[in-house]
Amino acid sequence: MKILKKAILPLGFKASGISCGIKKSGKPDLALFFSEIPAKAACVFTTNSILAAPVVLSKDYLRISDSFQAIIANSANANCFTAKQGLKDARETSQALAVALGLRKENILVASTGIIGKRLQIDKIKSGIPELVKKLSSGGAHEAEKAILTTDTFVKEVSVRLNIDSKSIIICGVAKGAGMIAPNMATLLSFIFTDANVSRQALNQALKAAVKDSFNCITVDGCMSTNDSVMLLANGASKSALISKGKNLDLFIQGLTIVCLELAKMIVKDAEGASKFIKIKVASARNYAEAKTVALNIANSSLFKTAVYGQNPNFGRIAAAAGSGGIKVKEEDLKVKVSSLKKKDIDVEVALNQGKASATVYTSDLTPEYIKINAEYN
Amino acid sequence: MKILKKAILPLGFKASGISCGIKKSGKPDLALFFSEIPAKAACVFTTNSILAAPVVLSKDYLRISDSFQAIIANSANANCFTAKQGLKDARETSQALAVALGLRKENILVASTGIIGKRLQIDKIKSGIPELVKKLSSGGAHEAEKAILTTDTFVKEVSVRLNIDSKSIIICGVAKGAGMIAPNMATLLSFIFTDANVSRQALNQALKAAVKDSFNCITVDGCMSTNDSVMLLANGASKSALISKGKNLDLFIQGLTIVCLELAKMIVKDAEGASKFIKIKVASARNYAEAKTVALNIANSSLFKTAVYGQNPNFGRIAAAAGSGGIKVKEEDLKVKVSSLKKKDIDVEVALNQGKASATVYTSDLTPEYIKINAEYN
Repeated sequence: MKILKKAILPLGFKASGISCGIKKSGKPDLALFFSEIPAKAACVFTTNSILAAPVVLSKDYLRISDSFQAIIANSANANCFTAKQGLKDARETSQALAVALGLRKENILVASTGIIGKRLQIDKIKSGIPELVKKLSSGGAHEAEKAILTTDTFVKEVSVRLNIDSKSIIICGVAKGAGMIAPNMATLLSFIFTDANVSRQALNQALKAAVKDSFNCITVDGCMSTNDSVMLLANGASKSALISKGKNLDLFIQGLTIVCLELAKMIVKDAEGASKFIKIKVASARNYAEAKTVALNIANSSLFKTAVYGQNPNFGRIAAAAGSGGIKVKEEDLKVKVSSLKKKDIDVEVALNQGKASATVYTSDLTPEYIKINAEYN
Repeated sequence: MKILKKAILPLGFKASGISCGIKKSGKPDLALFFSEIPAKAACVFTTNSILAAPVVLSKDYLRISDSFQAIIANSANANCFTAKQGLKDARETSQALAVALGLRKENILVASTGIIGKRLQIDKIKSGIPELVKKLSSGGAHEAEKAILTTDTFVKEVSVRLNIDSKSIIICGVAKGAGMIAPNMATLLSFIFTDANVSRQALNQALKAAVKDSFNCITVDGCMSTNDSVMLLANGASKSALISKGKNLDLFIQGLTIVCLELAKMIVKDAEGASKFIKIKVASARNYAEAKTVALNIANSSLFKTAVYGQNPNFGRIAAAAGSGGIKVKEEDLKVKVSSLKKKDIDVEVALNQGKASATVYTSDLTPEYIKINAEYN
């Protein structure tokens, strides 16, 4: 297995990114990912009960369609809290792209990220689509990635190459994260592409497993977004053996998890105002769910996060956070180890002495810069 | 009913506060509240599974004793995460005071607030006890209140006078809150005294009801303390009719709730680094629990709190927080109203349009000063 920190699109995929005028700065704000042949899709969305219009629409299309060939995403406007007009605008986006690509709108996934509660600039998107389609190229992933960023300070791309039997396949992912001034919240978008030949059920199983150990193990401020979307397309263009179970599926899940975890870590490293990257491992728990709950309680504790920012180690704050979430934690069993807070990368290890399960989560510190960014966002 | 923003001890109660040397500044750090006659006690403690030693000890004493005559509390050391030694030190505190007052140690409640993980300075406490007992007086509540503060910027005292049948009774409460530099977390202590004659069951019922609508409706940073304790003593010295049910109990609960709510609001007003006092009312929910969950999700959202600090109204952040906690919230039903963010006191009103229940919680904004306090606490 080979891991590369750049976006290498798999066979049959093309991408493009342009500036259609949503961002006042003139920076790229409209991205397109396209598969030349129909692909299977697996998606994971936010569990917030307030859903952005593109999430509602994409969920609808996933219910009625078996195959997908494109993902269109804009930045700088989340198209959320925009009522029926928002849904209409998202649908119109897919419709306009369907015409330009010669597809049905139901074969297109739509994503948005940016400010909430403002109507989507649908006219700008529609007039940008012809150029967007024209620019599609197999080397276009980097341009597309740039067009989904808001105030992320760096691009987030990773590709994994691995062999299924003796056929080489690629899993390539891009993401945007939580470093925003103009928009309102930590919206996470990630688009992942593979030319592997994967059964529908295995694709869903693989994405669920990969997200559980990556995107669902990071937290910046504990605030749940309305737009979070991870979208995976598999087009089978590598003509690899069908991946449906056994060691090939295990290998595919392993590769996909690496892609998701690398992207997730980059999101935490680029978190709003962060000065530290913190890895928290909770071990010897009764089960994975309890280990993860304790780890997330620590990761979301403002008192812990400010102590790390202040480089002021504080075992009491970790213990108190560990005990706060309804999981029974005994003081006499608890072991806490923290690496030097002077460094940028911090390791926290907590042992509960209750069982054999463990979980690892990633977070950042809480800094005055986070408050500045989020207090002065518009 | 008459409400006074100062501590007027009810009949039969005395208090005192001294400096025994735990605080390096020489400020008062040891408080005693004493009832001349045996009193019934009702207490509510933190639900954190990591408990400070004085909480463990007081819970033990509440299991084995029917009556209590004293509460001793120190500030600047939480006696938490101190293992078996901590429990021994808490017990020794009660033992030394029992000897000085001619009581059994099991008739004394013990509380601590301050830094976690440091052994209690038991020798200083023991040598302070004679002076502490000598200074007991019916006007001593203000001195005692001062001795439980850490970096609270003002004292928190309130008294309510009301009539049970035609007998006048007093409910008097003091509290310390969440404005700390030296200690590690938002520890909340509150001690409440009444000369009303209340049945044991009614006393517990009243305290539960009052705490539910007051101390359990405030949040500063969502961090749960290991030391939170609300202790209520009722000594019956007013010789009022026994309060056990009906309109007298309703009236008593009303008075007690006012005492708790006033103290709780003062704690939020004095929150670490706070520049705003925020009242969040969630209305037209299916039931109280759901209303409160939604209100607390908003109150604990860092994105909402920083927006208030920045005086940057943001309905999207409120909607996203409202939808994040597992309660189904429909965008088209949600109504959000926010008063001017330029003022110090902010009112947020959220209507869910699902039912008739409502809940109100109180919180503060998240400011760079909060981070400074908690990053540089030692």
